Amino acid sequence: MIERIAILGTGLLGTSVGLALRAAGFGGSIVGWNRGDEGAQTALKAGAIDSIAADPLQAARASQVVVLAVPIYATLDFMEKLSGVLGPAHLVTDVGSTKGEICDAAGRLFNTPARAGFLPGHPMAGKERGGAGLGDANLFRGAVWLFTDDASWQRSPASAELVKEWRELVAAMGSRTLDLDPTRHDELVAWVSHLPQFVSTAMSALLQDEVGDAPELKDIGGRALREMTRLGASPYSMWRDIALTNTDAVEAALFALEQRLAHLRENLRTPGLREEFDHANLFRRGQ
Amino acid sequence: MIERIAILGTGLLGTSVGLALRAAGFGGSIVGWNRGDEGAQTALKAGAIDSIAADPLQAARASQVVVLAVPIYATLDFMEKLSGVLGPAHLVTDVGSTKGEICDAAGRLFNTPARAGFLPGHPMAGKERGGAGLGDANLFRGAVWLFTDDASWQRSPASAELVKEWRELVAAMGSRTLDLDPTRHDELVAWVSHLPQFVSTAMSALLQDEVGDAPELKDIGGRALREMTRLGASPYSMWRDIALTNTDAVEAALFALEQRLAHLRENLRTPGLREEFDHANLFRRGQ
Repeated sequence: MIERIAILGTGLLGTSVGLALRAAGFGGSIVGWNRGDEGAQTALKAGAIDSIAADPLQAARASQVVVLAVPIYATLDFMEKLSGVLGPAHLVTDVGSTKGEICDAAGRLFNTPARAGFLPGHPMAGKERGGAGLGDANLFRGAVWLFTDDASWQRSPASAELVKEWRELVAAMGSRTLDLDPTRHDELVAWVSHLPQFVSTAMSALLQDEVGDAPELKDIGGRALREMTRLGASPYSMWRDIALTNTDAVEAALFALEQRLAHLRENLRTPGLREEFDHANLFRRGQ
Repeated sequence: MIERIAILGTGLLGTSVGLALRAAGFGGSIVGWNRGDEGAQTALKAGAIDSIAADPLQAARASQVVVLAVPIYATLDFMEKLSGVLGPAHLVTDVGSTKGEICDAAGRLFNTPARAGFLPGHPMAGKERGGAGLGDANLFRGAVWLFTDDASWQRSPASAELVKEWRELVAAMGSRTLDLDPTRHDELVAWVSHLPQFVSTAMSALLQDEVGDAPELKDIGGRALREMTRLGASPYSMWRDIALTNTDAVEAALFALEQRLAHLRENLRTPGLREEFDHANLFRRGQ
């Protein structure tokens, strides 16, 4: 039974995991660590963690499950360090938005009978702004929590059992779990998550240049503008790592959209515009 | 005092105007006309209109204020026809999303002392799907209702008084009014309304082609995907006229976004990406 969890990184996701675990009735201990002390204090005050660890590696060793809730490269750094200090009775899992490099590291550094287990995870939940202060016990309710596990990994019996229990805790937090191949995961999220983000960023940046100082803008912009630019508030610190670890798929998606926009622009006065609307309508009906 | 209003076109906006007028306490008569009988019947049953007119021109003659709530080209058609049958005791107003061509027609066909008045209007409110069935008494609450009036127009005293009273009714429906030059209006809405729409259409159409048949898609797509493609459900019938009457401004906005996306794509691995996020963050902070 999982009784000791360490959450490394108490930003929006880490804090929300702690709160959601408590809301789901998890009665064990939750120790937290955060690069900045303020985020850790906020998570502690919110009840997402019971105590703040001074040393993340020590906290990880003293726990059964380690949740990495930091940007991708920080996750990869922790994986290198944790691999050497954890053993077959530990499980590490993460919440990173790209899974290719993390799965490579998981196969290289974890998931042998003598080593700790690593379960690559990705909850499809978030907010456009980060930070412990926005932590939310219901963030994962109704969301899908993706795993990109590899059936060829030979885990110790103890870490295999922790995988099973962590999946149950994820379900208790209100998420549905879904298993995907990591390559398929990264391709699919490039379309349905990374493309929307980078389009919203580009549109927000463009509008800042074009009409950012128009006094009427605040009055005129309606729901459409708010929704299409909401993700413009997203932090670079998180998305840099996503751009660097899923570059090819994101490039392909952006290039395809550039071509599609050019096609629509060239057809504003032709029946081709109807075809684009028909196609778009079809997508929405399928949702 | 306005006592007789005709609403020509009882789709989403026309029906919502009728319902909002009633909610605001308007006690006069509201006659409706719609190209399809079903929409008129729905508006009647909802209480948005008191009666259905067989002949829209006759209904307009019998009213003081005529609200045109049809696509842009249908509005322009009605303006041609109404100009000949209405007189200086009438006011016509509209809810069209582009104002250049409508203001040209308003100056040519209305707004002399001997003719009916025409007040070009554009409530910044709507839904991604149309139809009388979605009519909503609160649609205009908290929204901005734009007018692109022209101070050089010489209206009859009666129609000038109706303009004043219609503006008061718009405020009573919960909207703030804002006056813009029609050219500035069309440029600004190209950025904050038409660009978001066409981007959402292009992205939805692209995703339909790329991942529309991915069985995991329904599970994975989160709030970001839903919001960024919500307008993909918008009807071609309405947007065709917008594309045709604001082509230059929409082309310029789309082309600028294509270039911005290419710039972002080429900088996924450089510090240029941070600049785009910083710029986008700035736009959102200003909202």
